[in-house]
Amino acid sequence: MNFVCVKDFENHAYNVLPKNALDYYKSGAGLETTLNNNEKAFSRLRIRPRCLRNVSKRDLSTTILGSKISMPLGIAPTAMQKMAHPEGEMANARAAEYYETIFIQSTISTSSIEEVAEAAPNAIKWFQLYIYNDREVTLGLIKRAEKAGFKAIVLTVDTPFFGIRFADMKNQFTLPPHLRLANFGGEKATKINSTKDGVSGLNNYVNNLFDASLTWKDVAWLKSVTSLPIVLKGILTAEDATIAADMGIAGILVSNHGARQVDGTPASIEALPEIAYAVGNRVEIYLDGGVRDGTDVFKALALGARMVFMGRPALWGLAHSGEEGVKKVLNLIKTQLDSTLAISGCSSIGDIKKEHVVWDNYYCKL
Amino acid sequence: MNFVCVKDFENHAYNVLPKNALDYYKSGAGLETTLNNNEKAFSRLRIRPRCLRNVSKRDLSTTILGSKISMPLGIAPTAMQKMAHPEGEMANARAAEYYETIFIQSTISTSSIEEVAEAAPNAIKWFQLYIYNDREVTLGLIKRAEKAGFKAIVLTVDTPFFGIRFADMKNQFTLPPHLRLANFGGEKATKINSTKDGVSGLNNYVNNLFDASLTWKDVAWLKSVTSLPIVLKGILTAEDATIAADMGIAGILVSNHGARQVDGTPASIEALPEIAYAVGNRVEIYLDGGVRDGTDVFKALALGARMVFMGRPALWGLAHSGEEGVKKVLNLIKTQLDSTLAISGCSSIGDIKKEHVVWDNYYCKL
Amino acid sequence: MNFVCVKDFENHAYNVLPKNALDYYKSGAGLETTLNNNEKAFSRLRIRPRCLRNVSKRDLSTTILGSKISMPLGIAPTAMQKMAHPEGEMANARAAEYYETIFIQSTISTSSIEEVAEAAPNAIKWFQLYIYNDREVTLGLIKRAEKAGFKAIVLTVDTPFFGIRFADMKNQFTLPPHLRLANFGGEKATKINSTKDGVSGLNNYVNNLFDASLTWKDVAWLKSVTSLPIVLKGILTAEDATIAADMGIAGILVSNHGARQVDGTPASIEALPEIAYAVGNRVEIYLDGGVRDGTDVFKALALGARMVFMGRPALWGLAHSGEEGVKKVLNLIKTQLDSTLAISGCSSIGDIKKEHVVWDNYYCKL
Amino acid sequence: MNFVCVKDFENHAYNVLPKNALDYYKSGAGLETTLNNNEKAFSRLRIRPRCLRNVSKRDLSTTILGSKISMPLGIAPTAMQKMAHPEGEMANARAAEYYETIFIQSTISTSSIEEVAEAAPNAIKWFQLYIYNDREVTLGLIKRAEKAGFKAIVLTVDTPFFGIRFADMKNQFTLPPHLRLANFGGEKATKINSTKDGVSGLNNYVNNLFDASLTWKDVAWLKSVTSLPIVLKGILTAEDATIAADMGIAGILVSNHGARQVDGTPASIEALPEIAYAVGNRVEIYLDGGVRDGTDVFKALALGARMVFMGRPALWGLAHSGEEGVKKVLNLIKTQLDSTLAISGCSSIGDIKKEHVVWDNYYCKL
Ligand SMILES: Cc1cc2nc3c(=O)[nH]c(=O)nc-3n(C[C@H](O)[C@H](O)[C@H](O)COP(=O)(O)O)c2cc1C
Ligand SMILES: Cc1cc2nc3c(=O)[nH]c(=O)nc-3n(C[C@H](O)[C@H](O)[C@H](O)COP(=O)(O)O)c2cc1C
Ligand SMILES: Cc1cc2nc3c(=O)[nH]c(=O)nc-3n(C[C@H](O)[C@H](O)[C@H](O)COP(=O)(O)O)c2cc1C
Ligand SMILES: Cc1cc2nc3c(=O)[nH]c(=O)nc-3n(C[C@H](O)[C@H](O)[C@H](O)COP(=O)(O)O)c2cc1C
Repeated sequence: MNFVCVKDFENHAYNVLPKNALDYYKSGAGLETTLNNNEKAFSRLRIRPRCLRNVSKRDLSTTILGSKISMPLGIAPTAMQKMAHPEGEMANARAAEYYETIFIQSTISTSSIEEVAEAAPNAIKWFQLYIYNDREVTLGLIKRAEKAGFKAIVLTVDTPFFGIRFADMKNQFTLPPHLRLANFGGEKATKINSTKDGVSGLNNYVNNLFDASLTWKDVAWLKSVTSLPIVLKGILTAEDATIAADMGIAGILVSNHGARQVDGTPASIEALPEIAYAVGNRVEIYLDGGVRDGTDVFKALALGARMVFMGRPALWGLAHSGEEGVKKVLNLIKTQLDSTLAISGCSSIGDIKKEHVVWDNYYCKL
Repeated sequence: MNFVCVKDFENHAYNVLPKNALDYYKSGAGLETTLNNNEKAFSRLRIRPRCLRNVSKRDLSTTILGSKISMPLGIAPTAMQKMAHPEGEMANARAAEYYETIFIQSTISTSSIEEVAEAAPNAIKWFQLYIYNDREVTLGLIKRAEKAGFKAIVLTVDTPFFGIRFADMKNQFTLPPHLRLANFGGEKATKINSTKDGVSGLNNYVNNLFDASLTWKDVAWLKSVTSLPIVLKGILTAEDATIAADMGIAGILVSNHGARQVDGTPASIEALPEIAYAVGNRVEIYLDGGVRDGTDVFKALALGARMVFMGRPALWGLAHSGEEGVKKVLNLIKTQLDSTLAISGCSSIGDIKKEHVVWDNYYCKL
Repeated sequence: MNFVCVKDFENHAYNVLPKNALDYYKSGAGLETTLNNNEKAFSRLRIRPRCLRNVSKRDLSTTILGSKISMPLGIAPTAMQKMAHPEGEMANARAAEYYETIFIQSTISTSSIEEVAEAAPNAIKWFQLYIYNDREVTLGLIKRAEKAGFKAIVLTVDTPFFGIRFADMKNQFTLPPHLRLANFGGEKATKINSTKDGVSGLNNYVNNLFDASLTWKDVAWLKSVTSLPIVLKGILTAEDATIAADMGIAGILVSNHGARQVDGTPASIEALPEIAYAVGNRVEIYLDGGVRDGTDVFKALALGARMVFMGRPALWGLAHSGEEGVKKVLNLIKTQLDSTLAISGCSSIGDIKKEHVVWDNYYCKL
Repeated sequence: MNFVCVKDFENHAYNVLPKNALDYYKSGAGLETTLNNNEKAFSRLRIRPRCLRNVSKRDLSTTILGSKISMPLGIAPTAMQKMAHPEGEMANARAAEYYETIFIQSTISTSSIEEVAEAAPNAIKWFQLYIYNDREVTLGLIKRAEKAGFKAIVLTVDTPFFGIRFADMKNQFTLPPHLRLANFGGEKATKINSTKDGVSGLNNYVNNLFDASLTWKDVAWLKSVTSLPIVLKGILTAEDATIAADMGIAGILVSNHGARQVDGTPASIEALPEIAYAVGNRVEIYLDGGVRDGTDVFKALALGARMVFMGRPALWGLAHSGEEGVKKVLNLIKTQLDSTLAISGCSSIGDIKKEHVVWDNYYCKL
């Protein structure tokens, strides 16, 4: 067994994925300062373990928007997963189903809402929404997600424009011709398969079709057209979190979009505390970005997240062996989280306290 | 398309420029701590993006000393640009003209004031002034710039001496024989083509011909002899900025001369906040040094600059393909700035606020 | 003489030990951030030497739990030392005996309590205890240690679970077949010689046999069944130290288990000051983790430790030449400590004061 | 001309010196954290240049203990300079003489007091004193220095023991047989030419012959037996500086002995401010350690030193070409200091102010 941590799956994916897909999956915006920092910031946090607390039985389960999940780690929405494995989003969702946790499906997935629902009927599925200029199309997506039994709408609010990713520009990234954006017909399904002027096909797609004029009023509209709880994905400041809480949003997913939108944003874990401090008692708070390890999950929870999601690690799992690969990745991190809880003196998710985690500079003050 | 960021142009220039010119262009003073820090300091700043703010239409234009420019990024004065491309300053000015922004011409340029004016009649041109021991010669330059339609005099105040740059000393740098300092005749045009005692020819030139005795009185003199607005280039402290503001100077260009004068000065972006804080409401403040990316422009503006300039990136553009190359560089950064604005929730330059940018250590306090 | 510091012994061991044993000895948990930090944190401390204090005679001796030792450096408990040298724990204990300092024997040693006692009758021996699910077995260990003349019970409180160490997982670590856990018979002696499912045999062993339900009540139980003083090993927070002090525990060994339990814990030396501050006047405080040098000992003592222990360096000494190798390692650090005392203006352990050591950031405040 | 900075001379010396001598010259104590930090700490300081201050004429001269020197950079005492060049200390002193600055001769030099005095009669010479167990011998040195026209006694207070330097241990360092400690006869001259037990011959020498019992009373004794002003070399704390000032000592040389005594001491430049703050108005304060550049001199002066010394750079100069080499090194740094003054807006040493220099973290506070 040579796969003992996420890095092993990542290294494997680097060897097997075609360059076009690999670069698309792994890249961050600009100089990738934030991409690196998403992981590095976790390593600047210190765990303060408590001892002698009877940790013989541990329970990693928690509830999210009323659903019980077996551990506070789910799968973040990432686009076009069939580039990693023929079963793409369906395999990913089944792995989440197996581990009784949340799978978030991207709007621009290569399996349709209905295909995913059918593949993983018992998974807790959320639908990640991009609002298109074409509001009818948008509404259609929402209704199909509701009908397919999805449990929340995750509105991504950090993507009025698509981030500039150098590798995709160099590769003139397009979706391979045998794949399509499965939730759509016509231009919206296939515009991403071609490019012009050496620009990433995805950027063309997004900047042409997504609605860059969104404001909080559109969030109100969204609330009015769906009965599902709404999660805002991509909030990075206490200011925006406060507006969301004031509007009665159900959840906030603190995220910098895997460092793919604009380089220089804080690591998600850096941004978390100010948001938890501002609205932690009013809204459920989640985090994604740089989670690679059970200790990362623990740290995020101590700093105020209720659960975390991971994007790329699931893609590396898919690239390895589809559903099985994602399960292995989930299992590794679950085992690590379990161990971290035990060694930190926690028997349950609720035992994780603020005092369990501090920044490294906490220690050089005495 | 393999040129997607300034670094690509820089790498290209490293391959094509002769060593003598390349070293002159890229070097910084002494051990180059500040040179590296000029760029690195930008990467220690974090952007706090705001979301849901209707960014469907963005306007990058602003006004500087009353002139409207299409974006807050211009071209800093760098000497002897014909070493990079036969059309040198003329090509550079035409690129600025194309992008409706400011071109600052160096006193020690290899195209004359008049040649630049003729090449780019509609560019907003500023003239960077070194005051020579010979005050008549100096006055001549000012009058010619006025006559040629330049819109401001940029007095460089950080160069009573020329900085010590190890590579130029090793190379015994001189201007290649087929080029001359085009604003002058006689010794002032050609002294730079030779050297002695293993000293850079440029250092000999400057230390012999420039007036190292300048004080604020000479700034008063300058004000008295020209009707053009005066910008002081090279201020790095709140103390000097305050004197400038008290004298009624129109603009301050916060700069460490591309880290070429004395190693150990702060990065320009480090020095900016204290100056903005001290005089930001009384003087227009600009910045140059280490700007390589649209996010850098955004950060500088958030910290108090009204516009920024870049020196070396334009040289790398020139070395690539003259006017076209500089245009490409300007276009890349403009596109990045546009994307940064959008993703940060800004529709116009005026929307960029202090709260949008913080130092990295802001996040490890909670 | 090419062995002038611990690193030389470490490098040697890397060359001579079989991979299975070497990886087991050297690894830390997870990504090994804490493992590296255990040593690096020492290097961020600065010694403030005092001069002109007559250091012609130095005395490194001190007393620990009433026993006089020749220097404040002892040997931490590490499991299965016969993988490093055929005489394993016995050789190690003899080296400690020679240097009149403390040897702590691990529960899961490859020499028995009685063998160690016989090999080093005059050594000050402490017994490190893991509490097994089987309380009778546990009690047996305690009684045997008492009978064999051990002077303290060191209860390790950071190991309800065994840490996740990637290399051991990849190696599917097991104790080589010719060795056994010498304090036990049956399953408890040999379960560690095999593995299943690509999991470290040690993790299987610990997670099956150790009691993960321990609480402070079990510490009270331990106090009630032995007359020996009790040291709690593995405390990293002021909170737990306070509980221990309130219970009348004799000693606290500040330790993160050589960074082997969960990655992300503070370096031991980082955690020390808060503990010394909280209970330093009520309990004897010791430290292990990253001690490689006489200056490390000095720093730990200045920050509040009464003595320190080292784990891996003794293993490297064993791997070099058994008892002689450990003596050489002890001698090197003793000589360095002596030199550090002299140059810092201290003639005795008691002369080392808080003011002698500060964190590096102390100096950039001006 | 390929030698444009101290590093060039250092690299050259690394190529030409025999290993035994090179290692002795370049090494620091222990893991060399402090050795590296001596230089690196300078690079964490920022110069805040002032502009428009008439720097056409600059005067680098200053007075030290009443003697006028041409620049605030002198030569620190380093032992056994003939290993670098046959003329050793004599060549070094002549270079100092040429540049009208201070040369400090080591007690354990390979030229005698009288030889140096004869070689450089007009140099301002100070004598660095190690107090031997044999007080008569010590007194003899003082009297000879007085007679030979030396202007101060520099008592090194950081060397009750010699530091542990790994390379010297490995090399079993001894002075080559054709050289001797020229100030002595008999054992004191030659004991250093041999070694035993793989210990550096120098450590044997020092630890046997130097007086490790020194206290402030011995400083009082020294004051009583000489009319020369006394400088204490090796003070690193405000506490000791205060004692020195209270005793009426003339000068304090802030130094960590080139990081050769105990690893972990602060960089000299780190220790300077607390000392300047405590006694800067009562005692002349100097610094050595890590000075490699004109900006280093400037920074030390801004933080409170009246002059600085350099040790190794002069050895690299000697190794290059004896007196000429040292002159070249002095000239390079002098030129750099001159440039630094000019560009920072200073015309004289007295113009350098505290406000000219700040630590790097000054700038990330906003
Ligand atoms: C290849 C890729 C595609 C992504 N596609 C989407 C998407 O379609 N919608 C969305 O909201 N976020 C998308 N994200 C962002 C992820 O939801 C998530 O924020 C991010 O991957 C978390 O960081 P991590 O990859 O370090 O775990 C994508 C991320 C990656 C890496
Ligand atoms: C090759 C070169 C030549 C320069 N020549 C001049 C000059 O003649 N006058 C001047 O005021 N600044 C000069 N500068 C400084 C630039 O105006 C500007 O401050 C600097 O280049 C900005 O830093 P950047 O190169 O990192 O963008 C020069 C800079 C470089 C790199
Ligand atoms: C190979 C190895 C085995 C260990 N076994 C034990 C053990 O059986 N019981 C225990 O309490 N600690 C054990 N430890 C932890 C040590 O007692 C000690 O805390 C640690 O080694 C100190 O760090 P250092 O190795 O950096 O000196 C072990 C450590 C190592 C490296
Ligand atoms: C090779 C060498 C020999 C030294 N010998 C002496 C000495 O005999 N007496 C003394 O007081 N300091 C001695 N020192 C310390 C120097 O005086 C001075 O403190 C140090 O070299 C300054 O640091 P730098 O080498 O970085 O300039 C020696 C330093 C070196 C590098």
